[in-house]
Formats: sequence, C-alpha cells, structure tokens
Amino acid sequence: MTTKMAINAKDIFRNQHRLIRFIEQSIRLCSNQSLKTAQQQHQKSNATADFEISASVNTEYTHAPEPIKHDKDLGQQFKASQLAVRLATPQQLQPKPDNDEELGFGKLFTDHMLKIYYHRSLGGWQRPEITPLENLVMHPAAKVLHYAVELFEGMKAYRGVDGKIRIFRPDMNMARMNLAAQRSGLPTFEGKEFVKCLARLLSIDSEWVPHTEAASLYIRPTLIGIDPTLGVASSDSALLYSILSPVGSYFKTGSNGAVSLLADPRYTRAWPGGVGNRKMGSNYAPTINVQKEAAARGLQQVLWLYGEDHQLTEVGTMNIFMFYVNDQGEQELITPPLNGLILPGITRDSILSMTRQWGKFKVREGVITMSMVTELLNQGRLLELFGTGTACVVSPVNRINYMGQDLYIPTMEQEKPVHELIRETLTDIQYGKVDHPWSVVID
Amino acid sequence: MTTKMAINAKDIFRNQHRLIRFIEQSIRLCSNQSLKTAQQQHQKSNATADFEISASVNTEYTHAPEPIKHDKDLGQQFKASQLAVRLATPQQLQPKPDNDEELGFGKLFTDHMLKIYYHRSLGGWQRPEITPLENLVMHPAAKVLHYAVELFEGMKAYRGVDGKIRIFRPDMNMARMNLAAQRSGLPTFEGKEFVKCLARLLSIDSEWVPHTEAASLYIRPTLIGIDPTLGVASSDSALLYSILSPVGSYFKTGSNGAVSLLADPRYTRAWPGGVGNRKMGSNYAPTINVQKEAAARGLQQVLWLYGEDHQLTEVGTMNIFMFYVNDQGEQELITPPLNGLILPGITRDSILSMTRQWGKFKVREGVITMSMVTELLNQGRLLELFGTGTACVVSPVNRINYMGQDLYIPTMEQEKPVHELIRETLTDIQYGKVDHPWSVVID
Repeated sequence: MTTKMAINAKDIFRNQHRLIRFIEQSIRLCSNQSLKTAQQQHQKSNATADFEISASVNTEYTHAPEPIKHDKDLGQQFKASQLAVRLATPQQLQPKPDNDEELGFGKLFTDHMLKIYYHRSLGGWQRPEITPLENLVMHPAAKVLHYAVELFEGMKAYRGVDGKIRIFRPDMNMARMNLAAQRSGLPTFEGKEFVKCLARLLSIDSEWVPHTEAASLYIRPTLIGIDPTLGVASSDSALLYSILSPVGSYFKTGSNGAVSLLADPRYTRAWPGGVGNRKMGSNYAPTINVQKEAAARGLQQVLWLYGEDHQLTEVGTMNIFMFYVNDQGEQELITPPLNGLILPGITRDSILSMTRQWGKFKVREGVITMSMVTELLNQGRLLELFGTGTACVVSPVNRINYMGQDLYIPTMEQEKPVHELIRETLTDIQYGKVDHPWSVVID
Repeated sequence: MTTKMAINAKDIFRNQHRLIRFIEQSIRLCSNQSLKTAQQQHQKSNATADFEISASVNTEYTHAPEPIKHDKDLGQQFKASQLAVRLATPQQLQPKPDNDEELGFGKLFTDHMLKIYYHRSLGGWQRPEITPLENLVMHPAAKVLHYAVELFEGMKAYRGVDGKIRIFRPDMNMARMNLAAQRSGLPTFEGKEFVKCLARLLSIDSEWVPHTEAASLYIRPTLIGIDPTLGVASSDSALLYSILSPVGSYFKTGSNGAVSLLADPRYTRAWPGGVGNRKMGSNYAPTINVQKEAAARGLQQVLWLYGEDHQLTEVGTMNIFMFYVNDQGEQELITPPLNGLILPGITRDSILSMTRQWGKFKVREGVITMSMVTELLNQGRLLELFGTGTACVVSPVNRINYMGQDLYIPTMEQEKPVHELIRETLTDIQYGKVDHPWSVVID
C-alpha cells in the first residue's frame, strides 16, 4: 500500500496531462450524451436526397498529391519515431477559453508546440521535439526576418460527434508545403512523418480541441529559413514548427454571415511567373494595406482581380466559386483554374471533387471576369458567389464594390443555396457525422 | 593618487570601447600616414577633366525625399536623446577579421546592435537601445514569421582617406523605409532620429569600419511585425533594429569583375499593383529559386524581364543601366523609369543626378526591351550594361543568356568605360576624397 502511494513527483508531473484530460473528460460525460442526441437529431432532420449524396462521397475524383522529390544534397530526413517530448510544467499550462463560441482567430495558443530543426552542416533534419509553447530565439540576421524565407499551412483538428479528433486531408497540406519549400530554397521533408508528429502534439493538447461544432483547433505548420547571413540564397538552416490555436467559426449559422468585397483593379495579388500558387509568406504582407483600404471603405474583404479583363482570382485569403446559369441555361459551378495565380486550395479541391460526383449541376474550372459578373447579374443569372478555405470553409458574398459601383449578389437569397449544401457536407465529414477517407482520426 | 587609481571596475567596463579604440587607433597611426600619401597620389593621378567634374557635383538635381505622413493613431515617436546603451562585456566582444579583403557579404557582425520596439498598447515607439549583438526572442506566431511583415534597408559606412567615417544619403534610405512601412501596415518613424541612433551605434563599433577602400561596414536597418496573432493585419507591435556587418567589395578592381545573366521571361520579379518598388522582404524569397537556376546554368545573376515585350527591369537585387548610341547617333545613358516595378535605388538616383550634371552624354529614364538590346548589339551600338546598388556600387555585365542564346555585351571592352567613371566618382564621394553633401560624416 505504502509502496503504491509512493508515486514520485516525477511520475505525477509526467502524467499530469492524462490526469487533467481524464478529469475534463469525466466532467464532459453528460455533454457527450447531449452530442449524441444532437447527432441523432441531425441525421433525422437532414434525411433528404442532398445528404444521402454527401454520405456517398468518395475520393475517386481527387488529385493524388505527387510524391516529393528531395534535393540530392538535402541530407537525412527526420522520423516521428525519434520524437522527444518535453511537457509543460503545471505553471506553464494556460487556462482554456471559457467560451468556445467567442474565440476569434489565432489569438490563443495551446500549451505545446512541435519543432524540427534542419542544419545542413549537421547532416540534415534533426530530431523532432515537442516542447511547451515558448518563444523562438533567432539571430537578427536570420533570413526569415529579411527576405521572407517562410511558408506555412492552415489545417484544423475537429472534435467529432463521436468525441474522436479528426484532421482533414493532411497529405494535401504536406504536398503543398513541400512545393512551397522547393520554391523558397528551403529543405523539403517527409510529410507523413510530420503528420505523425502533429498527431502526437494534438494528442498531448487534445483538450484544446473545442467541444463544439462552432469551433475547431487551427493547426499552423510553419517553415522558416534561419541562417544568420545576409545573402539572398537557399537556406542551410531552417526550422519547421507547428503551433495550435483554438478558433471560432468564421460566420454564425444563418443568413447574416455574408461578406462585402472591394474589387479594385489597381491592386494585384499574384501574376504569371510569381508565387501566387504557393503558400509562401511573401504573398501576404503586400495585401495588408489593401485590406486596410477595403475596411476604410466599409468592406470586409478584397476581391483580387487580374489582367485587363479584370479576372476574379481570389477573395481575401480564399479561393472563389460562382454558381450561375450558363449560356445553355444549365446551373453551373465555376472556379478559376490553377493557372499559377491561384492557391491550390484543399477546400477548393474537395468542393470540385464532391460536386462533380453529385452530378446535380455542371462543375467547371474556368476564368471568371468582372464583365461576366455584371452581365450575369443584369440577366438575373448569377445565383451565388462565395469564398472557400480551411479557416472559413465557405464564406458567402453579398456585395462587390467595383469601379465605384455596388454590385449586389443574391447569394443569401437562394432557397436551397449550394454554398450551404457544400458547407454542411464538408463539415459533416470533418466532424465525423459521415465516415469518409478524407477525414483522418487522430488516435 | 590613490583616489585616482581607484577607478572602479564599472568605469573600466564602461570605457573599454574607448580604450580599445584608442589602442587600435594608435597602432594604425602609421597606416593613416600612408592613407594620406595615397590620397595625394590619387588626386595627382586623377587630375583629368573627368574628375574635375566629379568634384563639382552638387545636389541640385536630386529628388528631395518627401516628409513622412504618420498614421493619426500611431502614438509617440522615439527620440535619439533617449537612447540607452548597454555595452558588450569583454567576453562578448568578437575578434575582428584579419583580412578586410576577404570578408564576403553579411557573414560577420559587429559587437553591438540597435533596437527600438513599437507597442501601440504602450503608447507607440519605445526608448531606443543599443545592446550587445544578441539573438531576438519572439513568439512563434509573430507576424514576421508567417506573413512576411518585414522590410529592410541597405546602407554603408565608409572609412574615408581622412580617417573619418561617412554614410551616404541616409535621408533617402529613411524615406524609402517609411514608404515600405506604410505599404506593409507597419509603424512609421522619424528617419532623422533613427539616423542619429545609427550614428551612435557606428561610433561605438567604429573600429569595425574596415581600414581599406576595398571594404566597408554594411548597415542593415530592419523593421518587422511581431504581434503574436495569426490574423493577416496591420502590426500593433514591431521591432525596428539594425545590425552591422563588415563587407568586402563586390568585385576586384580591374576588368574581370563582370557578371553573366540569366534572362528568362518565365519568371517575373515585380508587376503593376504589387510592391516591386518597396524594399519589402516579400520581394526576395520568390527570387531565390530563380537565382539557383541561374547558378545551375553557370550564370551569376538573374536579369528580371517584364511583359510581352520583355522589358529589362532589374539585375539580381540591383537597378540596371545601359550606355549606348541612340537613333540620333548620340551617346545616351538609360535606366528604366520608376513605374512601380523598379526599386527606387539611391545609387540609381545618385547616378542620374551626377551624370545629368556632367552633361557629357544624354541621360534618360526609359523602357529598355530585349529586342532593343539585341538590335543595338547587332549594330554595335550597345556600349555598356551594368547593375547598380549599395552593395556593389556598379556591377558590369558581359553576357546575357536569353531564350537559349548567349548575348555578349562589350561592357568591359570600352576604352574609357562610363561605369568605371561612375564608380570612381561615387566612391570618391563615399570615401571622402571629395567633399560632398551626399556624404555625411559620423562624429
């Protein structure tokens, strides 16, 4: 008896997370019960043709991410099996937010982070480590601070109606991240190993995954060049890391979540021969002042145009979709093609695959111009316009300010809006209401 | 006597830099003598019409930098008079390089750095401080690491033939830096106050300014957004800092310093509606892979083209100049106009002012296309092509690889090359061989 009681302080310390999780889970037992009820109600209320379609979505139409081609002199890869874990002390643990509904975006962070250093001089990628969330320490000449040698991904962990935690198509994020690394002169890595490390981090900080469908845990993998030299050159030292942030939903359920857009052809987000199709930090700083101008004019986001024919390319940091009646009188969903100016969104790809499989309307990747938008509006043929992305899922647009004129878009006035159907189908997969290979359960 | 001897350790510690400087200056007394002899010899050997012109350069033709318009809610400015100095301990002092001729670029740094924080929540700019060169500590969500919220300047401190240290047109750097801050949603600041702080930093690390005309002390003012939040937005917290790095000259004196260029229209550096005319970090990361491709093809720099007519815009990180015989049979110096795609180089501006005043040939800001280059080459009318910038001053080009073809440029084959005259005139000003208002002496 005495022996059993003599659990030393170290053990308690090591197992504090499990203990805290156990207590928290116990407290939530009743709310889990109410989740199950909600799930049953949901399945009942949505027993329509539309949702039967969603349940049968498969991956036939998706692009398989291409395998990574590493540089010959990259050196060793890291392995998730080598992962070292240093847990936060009780003093370092942060209080979790009281109200998951009012989280905002990217302001709070969890207790731990993942870090993997790369040093060419030490043979390549180093041992991955999970540490308490802590400040990064870097030389003031680090390349990331001068030449924007940096890239990131946006992913989310969702707590499903079954209590399990899922992430969405992580292989797609990893493939995109490696393409961005190649474009930035940063070291590439094995995405599968990184996802395994992320899964461990998520499991340690699992209680930070909100217990509501109105929120999720945003995952921010980041890769930065840290060589302390001022030459504009490839990075021989880098840090791949990830932080986690509980975030609210981008809009409230219902009709009032639509955004208004500034479409000003004087500003360009991306251009041929540039990096608009890579998730690199350099695509973002130049947009801040334009976003500020939109806000000053009472508009919520920027609609990025390109070329003399004012092609619609992206909305804020989202891909754009239009649902309209085409010249043949058919309903058609259209989004700009991946022509180098467009970020290959994972939500974008999922929507294309999904809706193509539905077969309810035509689906096409094609150029959308502002003259097309105004003409369709005049003829009452533009039905919906919406942005898509990991952060918002789907963000409907109700107004575009273009050349000093307000164009009102009837996105929110449709009886059975396609963007709502898309959002619900996707979130059903993400929150585990339907089983789907895109949704990966974290053990 | 005893009292005088009882200088406490703190005083010695505080004054170590003056002491070291005094000892080092004493040792160099004889080399100063030889510098003076060199100066006299230089004045003798260059007593030609060309150099009499250079001595009479004035600032009549230069663009006066526009005063900065600060945001209304920016808060308080910092003042150089509030500067706090924390000197390096003797253990922190770095050995200075043995051979100034083999410094390379941006690999070594001096003992101290300048830091000024901005926190909107604390009322604006904080007290400037000089500290030992040390790592920066920042939150892993800091905006600079995700969205390239960063900008910089490149300046140099030159040790003149009179032993005095000079910087070159710092008001121009400060004006450009503030324009970049406005474009990036970063706080603006009073350039004059920052230059005063820089002068103090230079004075503390003055022995790092190389004692040779083959080298100088590169100054890297940097401004980064450090808010620990993941929104793509203006920065409420920022760090303005500067590090110093002794650097060698970009090319050896003589004829073998020419560079070869890759001109591939598939890559674009800047585009209308972008930020190619601002010295923001986001302009650099996308160039690294292209530079790597140039190197793989045995070429030293990238010649950045723009548009369907393949306009020459910049060379690597430099502005570009062409000296040629125009359609009227006159010698003409031409550089692309500041149309938004071109960084408003301070060396560029100085060359325009200087050569316009010389009146020896026509000087024009105008578009240069690749078809113009090939036609002029075919007709033997292209005389010189060169890049210009703070790091290299002038960098002659002897070859362009364009659409799989090598174009040989006779820049190095001219008897009295204009680029050499420009370089010598500028360095004469920078190293104090001629008095000039562009050259500002640091006390």
